Amino acid sequence: MSPKPRVVRAAAIQMRMHEDVGTNVKRCVEMVHKAADQGATLVVTPELFGSLYFCQREDAAFFDLAEPIPGPTTRTLAAAAKERGIALVGSLFERRAPGLFHNTSVVFDKTGEMVGKYRKMHIPDDPNYYEKFYFTPGDLGFQAFATSAAKVGTLVCWDQWYPEGARLTAMKGAEVLTYPTAIGAHAREPAGIPERQRDAWMTIQRAHAIANGVFVVVANRVGQEEEMRFWGSSFIAGPLGEILAQGSQDKEEVVVADLPMDDVDVVREGWPFFRDRRIDAYGEITRRWGE
Amino acid sequence: MSPKPRVVRAAAIQMRMHEDVGTNVKRCVEMVHKAADQGATLVVTPELFGSLYFCQREDAAFFDLAEPIPGPTTRTLAAAAKERGIALVGSLFERRAPGLFHNTSVVFDKTGEMVGKYRKMHIPDDPNYYEKFYFTPGDLGFQAFATSAAKVGTLVCWDQWYPEGARLTAMKGAEVLTYPTAIGAHAREPAGIPERQRDAWMTIQRAHAIANGVFVVVANRVGQEEEMRFWGSSFIAGPLGEILAQGSQDKEEVVVADLPMDDVDVVREGWPFFRDRRIDAYGEITRRWGE
Repeated sequence: MSPKPRVVRAAAIQMRMHEDVGTNVKRCVEMVHKAADQGATLVVTPELFGSLYFCQREDAAFFDLAEPIPGPTTRTLAAAAKERGIALVGSLFERRAPGLFHNTSVVFDKTGEMVGKYRKMHIPDDPNYYEKFYFTPGDLGFQAFATSAAKVGTLVCWDQWYPEGARLTAMKGAEVLTYPTAIGAHAREPAGIPERQRDAWMTIQRAHAIANGVFVVVANRVGQEEEMRFWGSSFIAGPLGEILAQGSQDKEEVVVADLPMDDVDVVREGWPFFRDRRIDAYGEITRRWGE
Repeated sequence: MSPKPRVVRAAAIQMRMHEDVGTNVKRCVEMVHKAADQGATLVVTPELFGSLYFCQREDAAFFDLAEPIPGPTTRTLAAAAKERGIALVGSLFERRAPGLFHNTSVVFDKTGEMVGKYRKMHIPDDPNYYEKFYFTPGDLGFQAFATSAAKVGTLVCWDQWYPEGARLTAMKGAEVLTYPTAIGAHAREPAGIPERQRDAWMTIQRAHAIANGVFVVVANRVGQEEEMRFWGSSFIAGPLGEILAQGSQDKEEVVVADLPMDDVDVVREGWPFFRDRRIDAYGEITRRWGE
């Protein structure tokens, strides 16, 4: 007799942000409710959903957007998780101390308890993504947190380009990697380039699912903010890298998929990559460069 | 004034294997010549092209297929590389000592000199892939070798599922990762499954190109051997993970693409992933599991 399969309905919130923080938080909570209305028990918000993507410029005035944990946004998210009895992965600009800020993911369980906090480990700094000005690289390491829905690995945006982050998070027992994200292309980028970049962005995250035999949930923002066009395309992938659900490139929506959690076992037993890792030969991963 | 762009024409040999070793080696060399006729200066053979994929069974008689390095096959490959003035990545069943065997890649430069040897680090063992019976895991580490065409990173088949192998090879300075391969699906696999596996196999290797800003050349065998249908699909990808050329699923062919080598610089400067690696936080990669 087989036990009942464990299926988790997951949702990625894809939304457009506005100038006013209160409006963004309110609208995000509304979308969390929509996800719960559709039966989702694990919901992921986009990165820094409380504000426009301020990292397009370096301006100390934006530090005023940061808030402590716990604080207004985490209390609001906790209340929504508790009210709907869902696991919720949120994202915010964390004020840790005067002059010390992080880009942080927070995990709430269905009780409303905050069961996890992760500070973005890899911080980008590129034209229109001046994040190194705002965010100190995380010092909590790579982590996974048990929730009522699944064991959730917390990663954020730029982390998505790093196989090391996905691997170490999976090795903490994560069944689902979550990537709150704010990614797009410059509005003046020549035609074809954003499409290639978006394809690469999907490919590498699908590969994290494959390499580690886990699910991946990616929640991105949408819409144009100053010079950036955020490309939406929030998606949910299974442990063979297969796309289970994907959002549009330009609309707000709740992207929902059922995750057959037994696939973590099934796929890893079929492709036992963890069995054969050459841990005796990986030491130089901690070097900057190998030559 | 810009210097002349460096473009390397690369080729992956996709071929069907036969019972007789002499025939296989002869036919492979013919295909290397075809690649050179098309202007390729970097050519990659499929894995263990000298024989049928004997690892479908465990039988000590197959150890007779192994040969030392240098030996008949490496001498033949060296001669072909020298004759055509190309860099050539070959694959063979290496007899290192009585009872000690490896699955080995060898790199020849246009002079015919053997400039590199790599012993497959990750060894699979699954139904129809009983490689752990035949091959001792490699003890030469992850490597890249300077050739007249490009700096070539040597990896083999099952290695392709391991982001650590791709990363460490890229960190040795590889501009092109080469994967001689023998992969397919059981002939009785239900419809749809081989397609999903093949898609995952392409996705993860394209992701290695993206994560590391390198080119990837994958040479697979084709045709049915006993219970296995090898799925061909040999391909060449660029550092955004874009497919530059791809072979069929069922025909012998030389898969050729021009690699604009300056893209290694251009893509890495646009997406400077190596800059932001958290080498202070990757130490647990050398653990078997993180919990």
